[in-house]
Amino acid sequence: MAGYLKHQCYGKHNVRVSKVRRPRQAASKEEQHEFVELSVNVELEGDFDAAYTDGDNRSIVATDTCKNTVYGVAKNHSIDCPESFALAVAQHFMESYAHVSRCRIAVSERVWKRLLDSPHCFSALDSLKPTAVVIIERGSAPQVTAGFEQLMIAKTTESGFSDFQSGEFRSLADTEDRILASEVSADWVYSNAKADFSKDRQSVVSALLTRFTDHFSRSVQETLYLMAQAALDACADVQSITLSMPNKHHLLADLSAFGLENENEVFCVTDEPFGYIEATIERE
Amino acid sequence: MAGYLKHQCYGKHNVRVSKVRRPRQAASKEEQHEFVELSVNVELEGDFDAAYTDGDNRSIVATDTCKNTVYGVAKNHSIDCPESFALAVAQHFMESYAHVSRCRIAVSERVWKRLLDSPHCFSALDSLKPTAVVIIERGSAPQVTAGFEQLMIAKTTESGFSDFQSGEFRSLADTEDRILASEVSADWVYSNAKADFSKDRQSVVSALLTRFTDHFSRSVQETLYLMAQAALDACADVQSITLSMPNKHHLLADLSAFGLENENEVFCVTDEPFGYIEATIERE
Amino acid sequence: MAGYLKHQCYGKHNVRVSKVRRPRQAASKEEQHEFVELSVNVELEGDFDAAYTDGDNRSIVATDTCKNTVYGVAKNHSIDCPESFALAVAQHFMESYAHVSRCRIAVSERVWKRLLDSPHCFSALDSLKPTAVVIIERGSAPQVTAGFEQLMIAKTTESGFSDFQSGEFRSLADTEDRILASEVSADWVYSNAKADFSKDRQSVVSALLTRFTDHFSRSVQETLYLMAQAALDACADVQSITLSMPNKHHLLADLSAFGLENENEVFCVTDEPFGYIEATIERE
Amino acid sequence: MAGYLKHQCYGKHNVRVSKVRRPRQAASKEEQHEFVELSVNVELEGDFDAAYTDGDNRSIVATDTCKNTVYGVAKNHSIDCPESFALAVAQHFMESYAHVSRCRIAVSERVWKRLLDSPHCFSALDSLKPTAVVIIERGSAPQVTAGFEQLMIAKTTESGFSDFQSGEFRSLADTEDRILASEVSADWVYSNAKADFSKDRQSVVSALLTRFTDHFSRSVQETLYLMAQAALDACADVQSITLSMPNKHHLLADLSAFGLENENEVFCVTDEPFGYIEATIERE
Repeated sequence: MAGYLKHQCYGKHNVRVSKVRRPRQAASKEEQHEFVELSVNVELEGDFDAAYTDGDNRSIVATDTCKNTVYGVAKNHSIDCPESFALAVAQHFMESYAHVSRCRIAVSERVWKRLLDSPHCFSALDSLKPTAVVIIERGSAPQVTAGFEQLMIAKTTESGFSDFQSGEFRSLADTEDRILASEVSADWVYSNAKADFSKDRQSVVSALLTRFTDHFSRSVQETLYLMAQAALDACADVQSITLSMPNKHHLLADLSAFGLENENEVFCVTDEPFGYIEATIERE
Repeated sequence: MAGYLKHQCYGKHNVRVSKVRRPRQAASKEEQHEFVELSVNVELEGDFDAAYTDGDNRSIVATDTCKNTVYGVAKNHSIDCPESFALAVAQHFMESYAHVSRCRIAVSERVWKRLLDSPHCFSALDSLKPTAVVIIERGSAPQVTAGFEQLMIAKTTESGFSDFQSGEFRSLADTEDRILASEVSADWVYSNAKADFSKDRQSVVSALLTRFTDHFSRSVQETLYLMAQAALDACADVQSITLSMPNKHHLLADLSAFGLENENEVFCVTDEPFGYIEATIERE
Repeated sequence: MAGYLKHQCYGKHNVRVSKVRRPRQAASKEEQHEFVELSVNVELEGDFDAAYTDGDNRSIVATDTCKNTVYGVAKNHSIDCPESFALAVAQHFMESYAHVSRCRIAVSERVWKRLLDSPHCFSALDSLKPTAVVIIERGSAPQVTAGFEQLMIAKTTESGFSDFQSGEFRSLADTEDRILASEVSADWVYSNAKADFSKDRQSVVSALLTRFTDHFSRSVQETLYLMAQAALDACADVQSITLSMPNKHHLLADLSAFGLENENEVFCVTDEPFGYIEATIERE
Repeated sequence: MAGYLKHQCYGKHNVRVSKVRRPRQAASKEEQHEFVELSVNVELEGDFDAAYTDGDNRSIVATDTCKNTVYGVAKNHSIDCPESFALAVAQHFMESYAHVSRCRIAVSERVWKRLLDSPHCFSALDSLKPTAVVIIERGSAPQVTAGFEQLMIAKTTESGFSDFQSGEFRSLADTEDRILASEVSADWVYSNAKADFSKDRQSVVSALLTRFTDHFSRSVQETLYLMAQAALDACADVQSITLSMPNKHHLLADLSAFGLENENEVFCVTDEPFGYIEATIERE
């Protein structure tokens, strides 16, 4: 054959699981349920080469088995947060299969919140999706990354962009007042796997949002940097944070042809093309 | 030609507009902005046949003009809610073009809420999308429909489904305890165009959610019916309401092969296939 | 209660089924398989009111049973085309349940075509999706509608738009040369349920495409009308046809600021906002 | 500040451009147009730190300028294939901005093909999307990767999966006859930037498809490996190839409860969860 197997990885994606916690308290008239829903991606690396090169499946843990494992771990463990569940699943694979050298579990949560004061009714109204990724390499400590997707935020003023590069294809004018809108994604890496993930998540999100509101933004880049630093300040267990802040443009509508003045009031909202800005800030 | 033009309709879809309200108060140190974002569909009917049959465009209001009109109306009117903006756009078309016999404006809102206490920062974290449709037929009063999409709600108990039809292809067993999860869409029709749309929206949504929590559900059909009745009770200006409540199944994970008992704890979450249930309740 | 049940409808959506036909010919060395994949929506109307108003499920055919029925019919019938399968499923429901007054079956096909000359390998490379809708009202003949979605077509010239309405918000200039691009959807209604659906589908699609190429388009409206007439001409069993032809704009890129002349060469492609044009042509 | 800027990258995504080639041949009655449509992602790295750390934008090439550059390069170069256009855009950025250290251009094509024999009508009916990524690091030769997304292929037999790992959570039985369906993505890396990209693309795709049909598949892993090797065999300029072959399960419908035998005829088609299999084969 012309080539060799340089890298291989397999597993099951989009294993969607929900779990109801039903504390049966003798004294209570009604059970107070908890409800959590996750989508889980399982990826395994290890000594699986013979399946590729020789059609020898003996080492293969079927992707169907990977799926069952997620449901089994969901049964045997409480699901407190995406991070802890990802850890539990990853550890289960590493303990069960000695020939697995690396396991990566990625989890995305649909957040269900109690509806009114009902003991068993819930609503999922948040577009923001908490995420977690746990990677275990055999012989190393687990690496835990937490994050989120789809945090839509905007500044309607206190945002400008000026004094940037001129050149052949520049047509954008300097501005000291524009809308800055972004759909933020974040991933922060923990220095250890013993952090209080739920509390830290609140601290990180709160720090990001607070910093977003508190300054004149000279660019998405500057605002991203300030937000990331605030997250590191807020949470000592976080080793680094990556923010992706696409610039979801609100472009001033040109109404001059109709005799209307548009003083930063009415905007055309666009999804594409969009400015793409991403950076990683690491603790010194 | 073999056929005649039985029906035609055209316009512009997905005209996305945002507006910043900037009250300039002499005494205030900072402006307290408001921020609203809508996606607007414009559809016109009327005396446009010659464009189809003869390539004669003289009566055609270009779809580009439809788009500009949305931005122009956004400039000239305040945007208090999707319903009132849809009304303003529809009325503009009816007043501007005598040969338009019917105008339908559909609006979907991305809800921006104030972020922390910032005067000019906002977040859009709700997956729920308020909607409005205004139809004006020349010579008739405007018909206003309000609604929403993407309201995810669930009951983790107090929901069953039993005593339904047997027959050739039934395999589902009766159950007195299951998860009921739905992504609800609603559309309610106003008896007049003078209602207080924002207040009524709150009343309708509140009534739907409260009723969702307060009963043992014998079927999605029964729960839908009770919720719709509650909305009519809550809001005298609502003439009828249509609810669509797809059953987003959480299926009990079968762990018996692994020696694990699953007492309504762990579920497989699926998007398709899904139960589809829809009904309209009209005020007597 | 404030209201009465004006309309109700339920069923199962997105029931996805594939079927392999395996002709076992004694003389052949290899089976020559056929492979078809459909997504099916089942909707039932009838005497189901008690489920809504009284929580009485005895008349309800569970949506799970609806799903099973699709698989059962797939087993018991050959699947020659979306139209015939939708008919078979609809007829099964009408025959099995006397209290169902109306059944609507909507089918969408993913088209698998033989790959190379393999007897059992297939590829699904077409974005175009054939569709069919069959409605049976008790006591009436079945109504069969065939159609498709996602037919992307474009003219890079021989398309203009001029002499349209002026007015307050017009800014678009007349043009005699523009790109016309559309993602066409079509639905044609058969005058009877005995038509040769596969052959007719070929005739309709061929007529639509041929007419699209053969004229200077003075508007999307004119081209839509000509295409629809051609479909009626091509297929005597078609009673009416509805075409939806959103105008997926390719806007001339303005390169004048960079000293570049753009003679209808380079375009900005946009998905939204888009012109929406739809019409129904009925046989006289 | 707690952290330092470890990595940063920005640019413009989803810059969608179409180009018409209009050869004006004196002798021809009609121009024979060519039509190509691409979506382009621009990402720049380099000396931009001051924008993040000091709000100093002087080095920033605005993402709006990145967009304009794509249109400008589209005007000044012919667009023969995604690979060559990505190269041209990347080279333009490297030549124009000395402080850019690395440029990554990713291109995805919507394939327009001539419609009938029309000189200026086209259809885009392929779901398969050709892709290309060009990375230039200052001081190094361009790295060109070509690929595609959304190649749906299936084997209706000659596919099994057996003798795989048993263990705690295995429930899947061995099978010697199942459907194997996958939505293949591929990325192949060229050893040099002078390859004949269009010809090589045909060779790679043809080799992948041919190998897919020619063997009994003992696993997705084995089939992936054979296909990748075939691509390396077919094209000497390809240094390595990565294939992603998610297993889009067609699960045998269980009709036994209804007294129906299902001999690998009728299947439930699912999108999630799905088996995820990916590997890279590198030329020795």
